[in-house]
Amino acid sequence: MTGRLQHLFRPRSVVLVGASDKSAWSQLIYGNLQDSGFVGEVMVVNKRGAPAHNITGYANCRDLPDTPDLAYVFVPGDAVQETLQDIAAAGIANVVLLSSGFAEAGPQGAALQREIGDFARQKGLNMLGPNSLGFNNYAGRVAISAFPVDQKARPGGLAVISQSGATAHVIGQFARMQGIGLGCVVATGNEEVLGLVDVLGHFIDDPETKAVAIFAESIKDPAGFRVVAARASEVGKPIVVLKVGKSELASQLAQAHTGSVTGDDATFDAVCRHYGVIRVDSLETLVIAAGLLADVGEIKGEIGIISISGGACEIMADRAATAGLDLAPFSAETKKRLCEILPDFGSVFNPLDVTGAAVRDPSLFTRILDILADDPAIGLVATVQDVPSAQGDTQNTPILTAIGRGLTAARVPGVLINQALQPISDHSRAVMTECGIPRAIGGVDHAMAAFGALQRWSRRPRHQTAARPIAQVADRPSSEQQALAWLRDRGIKVMPFALVTCADDAIAAWQKIGQPVVLKIASPDILHKSDIGGVRLDLDDEDAVRAAFDAVMAAARQHHPDADIEGCIVAPMRRGGVELFVGTARTPWGPVIAAGLGGVWIELLKDTSLRLLPVSPDDARAMLDELKGAKLLQGYRGSAPADLDAIAATISAIGDAALALGPELVSLEINPLLVRGAEIEALDALAVWQHGEG
Amino acid sequence: MTGRLQHLFRPRSVVLVGASDKSAWSQLIYGNLQDSGFVGEVMVVNKRGAPAHNITGYANCRDLPDTPDLAYVFVPGDAVQETLQDIAAAGIANVVLLSSGFAEAGPQGAALQREIGDFARQKGLNMLGPNSLGFNNYAGRVAISAFPVDQKARPGGLAVISQSGATAHVIGQFARMQGIGLGCVVATGNEEVLGLVDVLGHFIDDPETKAVAIFAESIKDPAGFRVVAARASEVGKPIVVLKVGKSELASQLAQAHTGSVTGDDATFDAVCRHYGVIRVDSLETLVIAAGLLADVGEIKGEIGIISISGGACEIMADRAATAGLDLAPFSAETKKRLCEILPDFGSVFNPLDVTGAAVRDPSLFTRILDILADDPAIGLVATVQDVPSAQGDTQNTPILTAIGRGLTAARVPGVLINQALQPISDHSRAVMTECGIPRAIGGVDHAMAAFGALQRWSRRPRHQTAARPIAQVADRPSSEQQALAWLRDRGIKVMPFALVTCADDAIAAWQKIGQPVVLKIASPDILHKSDIGGVRLDLDDEDAVRAAFDAVMAAARQHHPDADIEGCIVAPMRRGGVELFVGTARTPWGPVIAAGLGGVWIELLKDTSLRLLPVSPDDARAMLDELKGAKLLQGYRGSAPADLDAIAATISAIGDAALALGPELVSLEINPLLVRGAEIEALDALAVWQHGEG
Repeated sequence: MTGRLQHLFRPRSVVLVGASDKSAWSQLIYGNLQDSGFVGEVMVVNKRGAPAHNITGYANCRDLPDTPDLAYVFVPGDAVQETLQDIAAAGIANVVLLSSGFAEAGPQGAALQREIGDFARQKGLNMLGPNSLGFNNYAGRVAISAFPVDQKARPGGLAVISQSGATAHVIGQFARMQGIGLGCVVATGNEEVLGLVDVLGHFIDDPETKAVAIFAESIKDPAGFRVVAARASEVGKPIVVLKVGKSELASQLAQAHTGSVTGDDATFDAVCRHYGVIRVDSLETLVIAAGLLADVGEIKGEIGIISISGGACEIMADRAATAGLDLAPFSAETKKRLCEILPDFGSVFNPLDVTGAAVRDPSLFTRILDILADDPAIGLVATVQDVPSAQGDTQNTPILTAIGRGLTAARVPGVLINQALQPISDHSRAVMTECGIPRAIGGVDHAMAAFGALQRWSRRPRHQTAARPIAQVADRPSSEQQALAWLRDRGIKVMPFALVTCADDAIAAWQKIGQPVVLKIASPDILHKSDIGGVRLDLDDEDAVRAAFDAVMAAARQHHPDADIEGCIVAPMRRGGVELFVGTARTPWGPVIAAGLGGVWIELLKDTSLRLLPVSPDDARAMLDELKGAKLLQGYRGSAPADLDAIAATISAIGDAALALGPELVSLEINPLLVRGAEIEALDALAVWQHGEG
Repeated sequence: MTGRLQHLFRPRSVVLVGASDKSAWSQLIYGNLQDSGFVGEVMVVNKRGAPAHNITGYANCRDLPDTPDLAYVFVPGDAVQETLQDIAAAGIANVVLLSSGFAEAGPQGAALQREIGDFARQKGLNMLGPNSLGFNNYAGRVAISAFPVDQKARPGGLAVISQSGATAHVIGQFARMQGIGLGCVVATGNEEVLGLVDVLGHFIDDPETKAVAIFAESIKDPAGFRVVAARASEVGKPIVVLKVGKSELASQLAQAHTGSVTGDDATFDAVCRHYGVIRVDSLETLVIAAGLLADVGEIKGEIGIISISGGACEIMADRAATAGLDLAPFSAETKKRLCEILPDFGSVFNPLDVTGAAVRDPSLFTRILDILADDPAIGLVATVQDVPSAQGDTQNTPILTAIGRGLTAARVPGVLINQALQPISDHSRAVMTECGIPRAIGGVDHAMAAFGALQRWSRRPRHQTAARPIAQVADRPSSEQQALAWLRDRGIKVMPFALVTCADDAIAAWQKIGQPVVLKIASPDILHKSDIGGVRLDLDDEDAVRAAFDAVMAAARQHHPDADIEGCIVAPMRRGGVELFVGTARTPWGPVIAAGLGGVWIELLKDTSLRLLPVSPDDARAMLDELKGAKLLQGYRGSAPADLDAIAATISAIGDAALALGPELVSLEINPLLVRGAEIEALDALAVWQHGEG
């Protein structure tokens, strides 16, 4: 372990501030420290300087004979300020603050929290909390915690970070039940100084940590999260996260519970996808997927599964489809080899039903696993069978042994899948050792979710570390015609248009265009042109153009007497094609881009795809494939298929254009971007700036 | 236990046919029978008449001193026919046939299976199998099985039926791990004589069975399933089913595995909804939901949940949303009472975060549960907390005791929810007894799914037992104009139209209609009119109508020289509005009706709602609400909102019309049904009949 937080999570000596033999908290905390196997020095401080837990007591930290690495503080809330001053004066660098009565208790507490936070920041204290239940570091054999140390836990490479103390405990306990080796389990509390992202960064850099499981209510440092997530992807350390707030109710609850808004859930999804962070939707999947990732890391190839239960194969196939797990068919060569040893096989699927033949001859399992592991396209092999959790559970030793042989011999990771979710207990592990089974997860439902996570992680996007630079410009296009002209200058195809200031010029523009036109009010102050009668369609004679110009100008002046009116835009009337919507937005997570089909697709179906900017043309192409309405672009009812690559290039260019406009740009929206076969044309554009709209 | 299958599943005496001390199968089977606690007489038969398992042997069943209730047959496949003849001759009524080598082994085996099936049916044998692993009847203390008897299982009210033997075992074992009392666990095998539906019917009628959990690959008797499901709903006995085949791959696998097509998954969904059968998507949810339903039955009111973990509350809120569980807000009175004892509460949600205050004062749990249970709107109360699975797991006795007090005192069922999924072991049950906790399920993810199941069951549709009769008619409308006219006669609004046979009549019809018209070829033999140029739109002068008539007739004769051409239909050209699709279809499950929006909604988004016929106007109204495109009907972009009740009445009437046409009707399709505000009009109709299309 290295880094700034090394001695926070692995202190060599500890002072318990607030320790007392009479306090139940103190008993619990001291007991946990003992249970954790901590071998360093423990000191105690309390206001009377009395001994506690058979340890000499001091009245303050400054009087301690040595400077401990860490102070665990559980004094009453109103004594925290003084205590922190004492700690800083004593030169103690790391603090875990259990005391409550801060932001979680209302505005007054929040103010107090800010004060102690300012102090801690000023003094450079690494402070976890307040209101933090602390951590149980199983790998480091130290518990600075007010939640139970699980005596049955096994040290290992999975770090757990939770914004809920109770949930930290549940995750750790469930991981232990699943036989997963635990590193450090941290409850971050109110995150006044150190937050989830700081702790995550520490474990990403910690060489003993193999994967991190997170329970999050609200990511308070989005920019920091991106930096750490990028580093995790680069160094190949998986992050699995259960973040609440998908439903409106959960979002309200999180706000009530943490006092902070969880932010836009869809944007968080886009961030996770960008960096290969695996987002899951249950505690069980969080633990099982993170445990598998910690154990197996990245796989190079497809996942091949076999089972003696046809029912299990069918359940896995259904579940894989919903979990987004891609179970590729076996190669022709592998199928041929499988048919040689299983001549009765009608058809060879993945997952493979080995049929009852393997009851009579368990060695079939070994031979089939050998064939799968021989296939260079396969990166992981798995077999469904039950490993008993306890004495007296059913155990089929001949089959387990045959499976163990195959899994052990495989040149790729081998996994046994329990049919239903059950503990991987010490008894299970003994049976696994006896039968040569390297690892077991389960049941099939969670295994498919975990395999999906493993596959997504292994196939995560590899972004160029040096993304192509996008030079920022001083331009500040604001009105529609400015925005359109500016996009045109950046190489984005824009409909031909003219800005006119009198009816005669409008007529001249119509004549020059030589086909029916549309006429729209041009004003940076009028955003919803249609609503005020500021748009006229399909004009194709002098009188109509003139009347439209007059009417639109009058309507604008009537509805927006103070607006800066530049005139009218005259542009050709377009018909047919598919209308897309492309828009960028500034979010706490950074600038993002959304694309989708217009009209009902976006308004009723919310059928959009979202990415962090910049997007490459390849990324943008993947965005289009995600849309439910994608088929409309592929040529629906005899219309010409759109040039998807050209659309993707346009989306990418719009994203770059938005980035070039710098951080003051709130959003850049092209709506519609009209697609007719190979023709792509922006028909309208809107740039919104931070200060006002011009 | 009563009924025809009483002595199949609860035999008082058994003969093992094929028994031998040397056979591993025989050892297993006899061992299971012993393990099950069977106290009835066991006899043995084998071809040598030799003793086995220390029991006198006989060479055939006819020689047995008594007639046993059941014969368990595991002779080789080629000896089965003779054995069944012997069994029938001996007057034994019930047979479980383990022997394999039948339909699962290919066409020859399938033929042999049909033969023995015909014999068994002729003799009236109640036969399970062939290729059936049998059953373990924990409630009845008898195992006629070749899959393990779970010695730790507790007798109870949950019956399990599985079409996969391996999965029967997994379900039973997982149920035991979840502390759920088991009745009979049955593997139905090849279902030659008795099938899933027969066995299900037996347990629905069995007074000791409280709920049934099913794993199904293929329901071979759809009509029978409907009858039994209706009875189950009526008598209040829940059925929970995990049926594979949602994904294409699983569908292929099931076909390879069982040799039968799983049928249309969406139709099965509609059947489940119709009868309140609960469909789930994992083994764990199958067991946990069925176990809860067996235990609690129907609830009368909302579900109220509390937790000391804010994190758990948020996870539950997210999960409830995806599980379709409706967690209603607490009533104003209940909120007021809660605020009185928890003054720091900012906002009172369901699920309710009781906050850390309950750590200091566990009695808060009791008092809060009392308040919830007092609320007449609440039908079930639940608390999140962990009950330990094993010695050494974390146990918070004061909190568990406070919760137990509240749950026990409640006038409604009380449930403890474990945060993560873990066994409800004997140790758990001891702790629960000690703390007064009536029942526990978990974790929160599966608990929300189980509560969703409980809520759907409790709110299941109550169909009138005597559905309004729909008289069948002898009419056989086939061409478009016949179908339209016939619908009009049944009170369904149809666009005005005329059938014309010459251009002059077409012109006269246009003049009479007095607005632009559409002209379509009229022929029962031409289904895809547009494809051959058989439709002309927007005709509004004599020449256009005449030219269109001639062109359409010529196109029809050219493309379908043998078609019976009746002339052309002339109808007013409609514009605007929303086009719906309403179609009925005959399926193995009975006649169904689908409704949805036309165009991309049905073609790209598959946005349809499906119901068994008949549908009442209320059912049809619910169908409309289900559609993703529903908002288009509610007035989108300023268009007039549609009269949803009138549309629902029309859908119901179309369904009745299809039923009235009798079983020879394959489908009746109205596409489009045009909706413009309150106006609803069928613009096209197609009736397809079993023998040809006319």
